[in-house]
Amino acid sequence: MTEEPLSATEPTLIQKLAAEVIGTFILVFLGCGSVVAVVTGVTHAEGEGGFWGLEVAAVGLAFGIAVVIGAYTFGRISGGHFNPAVTLGVASSARITWKEAGAYIGAQFVGAIIGALLLFLVAISSGYNSWSDGGLGSNGFGDGTGTGIVGAILVELILTFIFVFVILGITDGRAKANAALAPLAIGLALAAIHFVGIPLTGTSVNPARSFGPALFSGTDALIDLPVFLIVPAIGGVAAGLLYPMLFGKDGSEIVGAGFGFGGRGKAHAQPGFQWDTNTAAPAAPAASATPAAPATSTPAAPAAPAAPAAPDTSADSGDRTVVSGGNAGSSGQQSWQQPTQSAEGDLPVYEQDGWRWDYAKQEWVPIEQ
Amino acid sequence: MTEEPLSATEPTLIQKLAAEVIGTFILVFLGCGSVVAVVTGVTHAEGEGGFWGLEVAAVGLAFGIAVVIGAYTFGRISGGHFNPAVTLGVASSARITWKEAGAYIGAQFVGAIIGALLLFLVAISSGYNSWSDGGLGSNGFGDGTGTGIVGAILVELILTFIFVFVILGITDGRAKANAALAPLAIGLALAAIHFVGIPLTGTSVNPARSFGPALFSGTDALIDLPVFLIVPAIGGVAAGLLYPMLFGKDGSEIVGAGFGFGGRGKAHAQPGFQWDTNTAAPAAPAASATPAAPATSTPAAPAAPAAPAAPDTSADSGDRTVVSGGNAGSSGQQSWQQPTQSAEGDLPVYEQDGWRWDYAKQEWVPIEQ
Amino acid sequence: MTEEPLSATEPTLIQKLAAEVIGTFILVFLGCGSVVAVVTGVTHAEGEGGFWGLEVAAVGLAFGIAVVIGAYTFGRISGGHFNPAVTLGVASSARITWKEAGAYIGAQFVGAIIGALLLFLVAISSGYNSWSDGGLGSNGFGDGTGTGIVGAILVELILTFIFVFVILGITDGRAKANAALAPLAIGLALAAIHFVGIPLTGTSVNPARSFGPALFSGTDALIDLPVFLIVPAIGGVAAGLLYPMLFGKDGSEIVGAGFGFGGRGKAHAQPGFQWDTNTAAPAAPAASATPAAPATSTPAAPAAPAAPAAPDTSADSGDRTVVSGGNAGSSGQQSWQQPTQSAEGDLPVYEQDGWRWDYAKQEWVPIEQ
Amino acid sequence: MTEEPLSATEPTLIQKLAAEVIGTFILVFLGCGSVVAVVTGVTHAEGEGGFWGLEVAAVGLAFGIAVVIGAYTFGRISGGHFNPAVTLGVASSARITWKEAGAYIGAQFVGAIIGALLLFLVAISSGYNSWSDGGLGSNGFGDGTGTGIVGAILVELILTFIFVFVILGITDGRAKANAALAPLAIGLALAAIHFVGIPLTGTSVNPARSFGPALFSGTDALIDLPVFLIVPAIGGVAAGLLYPMLFGKDGSEIVGAGFGFGGRGKAHAQPGFQWDTNTAAPAAPAASATPAAPATSTPAAPAAPAAPAAPDTSADSGDRTVVSGGNAGSSGQQSWQQPTQSAEGDLPVYEQDGWRWDYAKQEWVPIEQ
Repeated sequence: MTEEPLSATEPTLIQKLAAEVIGTFILVFLGCGSVVAVVTGVTHAEGEGGFWGLEVAAVGLAFGIAVVIGAYTFGRISGGHFNPAVTLGVASSARITWKEAGAYIGAQFVGAIIGALLLFLVAISSGYNSWSDGGLGSNGFGDGTGTGIVGAILVELILTFIFVFVILGITDGRAKANAALAPLAIGLALAAIHFVGIPLTGTSVNPARSFGPALFSGTDALIDLPVFLIVPAIGGVAAGLLYPMLFGKDGSEIVGAGFGFGGRGKAHAQPGFQWDTNTAAPAAPAASATPAAPATSTPAAPAAPAAPAAPDTSADSGDRTVVSGGNAGSSGQQSWQQPTQSAEGDLPVYEQDGWRWDYAKQEWVPIEQ
Repeated sequence: MTEEPLSATEPTLIQKLAAEVIGTFILVFLGCGSVVAVVTGVTHAEGEGGFWGLEVAAVGLAFGIAVVIGAYTFGRISGGHFNPAVTLGVASSARITWKEAGAYIGAQFVGAIIGALLLFLVAISSGYNSWSDGGLGSNGFGDGTGTGIVGAILVELILTFIFVFVILGITDGRAKANAALAPLAIGLALAAIHFVGIPLTGTSVNPARSFGPALFSGTDALIDLPVFLIVPAIGGVAAGLLYPMLFGKDGSEIVGAGFGFGGRGKAHAQPGFQWDTNTAAPAAPAASATPAAPATSTPAAPAAPAAPAAPDTSADSGDRTVVSGGNAGSSGQQSWQQPTQSAEGDLPVYEQDGWRWDYAKQEWVPIEQ
Repeated sequence: MTEEPLSATEPTLIQKLAAEVIGTFILVFLGCGSVVAVVTGVTHAEGEGGFWGLEVAAVGLAFGIAVVIGAYTFGRISGGHFNPAVTLGVASSARITWKEAGAYIGAQFVGAIIGALLLFLVAISSGYNSWSDGGLGSNGFGDGTGTGIVGAILVELILTFIFVFVILGITDGRAKANAALAPLAIGLALAAIHFVGIPLTGTSVNPARSFGPALFSGTDALIDLPVFLIVPAIGGVAAGLLYPMLFGKDGSEIVGAGFGFGGRGKAHAQPGFQWDTNTAAPAAPAASATPAAPATSTPAAPAAPAAPAAPDTSADSGDRTVVSGGNAGSSGQQSWQQPTQSAEGDLPVYEQDGWRWDYAKQEWVPIEQ
Repeated sequence: MTEEPLSATEPTLIQKLAAEVIGTFILVFLGCGSVVAVVTGVTHAEGEGGFWGLEVAAVGLAFGIAVVIGAYTFGRISGGHFNPAVTLGVASSARITWKEAGAYIGAQFVGAIIGALLLFLVAISSGYNSWSDGGLGSNGFGDGTGTGIVGAILVELILTFIFVFVILGITDGRAKANAALAPLAIGLALAAIHFVGIPLTGTSVNPARSFGPALFSGTDALIDLPVFLIVPAIGGVAAGLLYPMLFGKDGSEIVGAGFGFGGRGKAHAQPGFQWDTNTAAPAAPAASATPAAPATSTPAAPAAPAAPAAPDTSADSGDRTVVSGGNAGSSGQQSWQQPTQSAEGDLPVYEQDGWRWDYAKQEWVPIEQ
């Protein structure tokens, strides 16, 4: 009677990691590719019928757009980080577990290496040897740039802080209608950050993005690499700590995540930072409050509905009556309960995890004890 | 009593093909036109009161914006492909029939030829002979570009793969709220892809876009043309196969489409890949699964409503009362049934194709058999 | 008991014309101002600590963005045309009366002259005499551009046709969710059009935009002016005729507008072409069709609710109870009726013009007769 | 019974000021940073493996994008002004109290100084001494620019007027669906304004943005500074007065704000100018009109519900039952009342400030006296 859907809507961890791999690959290939295009373009411009040099505006936009399209494509699946500094910032603000953060970061490095490798193959088959000719869009400082190590550290620290801070703000669960535009805004942020940082360091703000191209860009890039691995990570963590300190939490924080200081976390394994734009559906109750469950009085993990955007119906249904949210498992997706007849009238009752759908308000409200 | 609307909302095949013709014409005229503008602009810059050279940023944005406006204009009608590689990718992922795909591709080539012809007329009446002076924005490799055939194949393959892959992700029916932004995101993707590919091949990722201008760009362009006809097609098909393999299907797949391996299709002739932004209306029930109804107590597999955004009418109707969705024909548009009185109360019942509107949940739920 | 709102929501004709004046002023000041900035920028670049030349990308974006912000600001009020070619195209497709179109066009010329005058004052007080030094962003062809009159006519005709055609498609009432993005998409269209046309004619596609600056740009600009007054107008009318011919009408056509061939109009004086983004509110019932009511069982013509976005109140009311929509007057704004007690339960009834708010479906449904 | 959520949704004044500080810091760091990047970039381009000059397009976009991301991040909190001219314009149009405006402006200057200081540190550690080498993106006129003081005043006056005028229009509570796009549109406006103003004055339109960098840019910048402190302020106030004069008010005006001429204000301290994109939530009742209640049958003044988007709590409460909105204090955020049982049925009653949530209409309706 009930047919299995062709594909479940809750992404598996493998799918999340695949999303991070492919998204980071796209970021490196398009972003660093636009830098390489400048160099080859300049070379060609001297030949017959040649092309012209790419502009820095295009390089910045290439990085930014890569995030835009990656986030619209993969936001539903992995949250669309593509950047260890972002993942660390999100983990610091307790929107993702440290364990999942680690897996994400690994996937990002894999994706960056794939992107750089493919770009290297394209470049070398176009007569451009990135190892000896000027890098594969790698980051650096010193002789080539006029920027010393202090300047490089400073600008990467500030730019990464800005990037992760605005990401946390834009994706704050309390800014409800931001969802559809968040990927665009975040991508534009990265573009503007490049407009500032390109002449100084080439702009990293992303350890994985620095790592991949450095493997194909000669010894100078490798020598400078540690700065671009460490500093953005620090900037991301700083933003992840400061944002909730200043502006509070949006209720998507989860148990066992963050640094454990600064408020109650909740058992909820889905990444809170999610560029998922599915806000049209009635969202599960947001955040924080811990109202009791309807029949039982043990509220049990009400944080689960914190990332309600990806509508997901768990298998533990049944329930027209007792309805208690039993979805505190590691997948953390809220389970929509079957309706019971309401005391309030003829409309069925939807309850979940101590929350209840309020017809009048058209949103979830906590159930009083 | 019932009056026929002035225009039906389901576009005819002729209208779909007209949309693809005009959209591809706009893509070629604006995109390749911006390239031509560079050359004439450079020429004029040497004259009195002349202009200045166009930037590559503008060229990339011209192509990207052409897709943005084409998709917002024609997405409702044809899905807004304008690109055989995209159509092949969409068909490979079983969101459109191969028959319709063939017609689309023909229309795209027609549109590209019209666009190139008009651009040629504009150019030649402005003193620019594209045949002898440097092409009409055609694609190429070799002498003029420094890129060999291997590099050209590699970069076109990767860029087309990225383009079609993100299109499939952005328009995935499970990413509900993406709809309004999808045309913008996809257009930006094409812009970023140009930032990488312009100095290498001029960026095709679109066989039709390469074909039209090649007719007016001299023998070199014609000699190089086969690469730009074949490679993007392969890249598109690869993305069309890999995306659902990695991330599952969104339920918009149709019977008789795709390659017939990898899952059940459904009888549904509407192009699944559709930049239609009409998501505000209560969407028809999504795909496949047929979970139990409220009255029964075995809801099992409630995941079905997870992707309501892509309107899809499955064939497995079996309706509860009088109202039965009989729209499983080739036009595929869902027909909204008139309400009957509900067993649940005084509110009318809306049912369609085995789904039923749930007042409380404000979304469609499947009707139990 | 009922208090008059501080400001009625239906804009007066004066307000509409003020919107067109100010919007066109902004278009000319920002768009042509960016062109002037190039010239002065180039001059300054030679001085100490000077600036650098503006890019064509910036000029195109300046025009495009001016339309974006004008449309978001004034779309609610006047529909946000700012361009006689657009107004003519909209009038040709019967979405606005010819009388109102005439007033709009007058206002657009006034706005363009104000914009050019203010820009002239800024330029001359910055040491730039547009009359003798190279124009105020005026359009032209011939010696300075390399483009002959035939090329100029051709490119302006095609570009204006594209511009107005996509405007009509993007704002088509049947593309519901386009509303919020329409101003952005249309502005981007104008930017891409500039990327093509700048080196050829400077890009007009707008008679008013050509007229204002020509007054301050020397005799050459005045001699070329007629082409830019006439050709865009023709392109706009052509698009206005072809679009509904190919893709049908969206039901926003009004009586006494258009050319009177090609379909029934309706008594409805609100400009159908309106960048109004208010689609979140429950839209008034869409156009034309009058399908059977819930209690009856003849669903007939369920396609009617397909295009609810363009609020349109048809004259065929015939209301069920006391509440009758008496708003068929020339202002055309729908009047929301006060609720009566519903037969369906305790909830009040909202009815208007033969439509009724359906609690369950959360949209308007027609009232059976 | 009702539990306090972990974080209240009403931002404190401290949070608002923190938002303005950080937002203005980001604006100055990214915007002026992109200017500095040009200079250093040009220097590096002469070295080995160096970079290339930044384009004006990138500078304009950097400023614009900084506003986009600031508004998406902080709009929910402070309204996202980041600019004393904007704050003055908003206060002039009575959407914010003069007291709060003063605090905002102070915060903006603090943020600008922090941004300029950090940028100075980055620059100097990259070998660029802004004091002697050409400024830190400061504004100016005269020798370096070719623009005299009259031209500078004129262009800053007009550009600031345009900027604040379109902000007031885009955020007008009557343009409901603009909310999600408003930050993007306003940021784009700032970009286009830069395309015009960069070669003339460097573009201020923002006293705080001029003040910070001037402190690190040598004596010339300090001498020119007063123009950029005073003129944008005048332009902002002019727009703040003219907009409501021409196009009426949207009902978000508050008592004790504005200049006290030109219409009734209302006791409501929430900033009317707010880039808050939360429109999905049931909006507070819109403004002014008090149409008859459900039980009565005199519909009268049905136009009132036309602009529900701008949450506004009018003072004319007089509530029907127990729940009365007592939130007219200076924080001004609407406080959602707990439900009581409704006379209309079994659904709880939500009332606030003389408005009441209407289940059927899914919006707020005024309570009759």
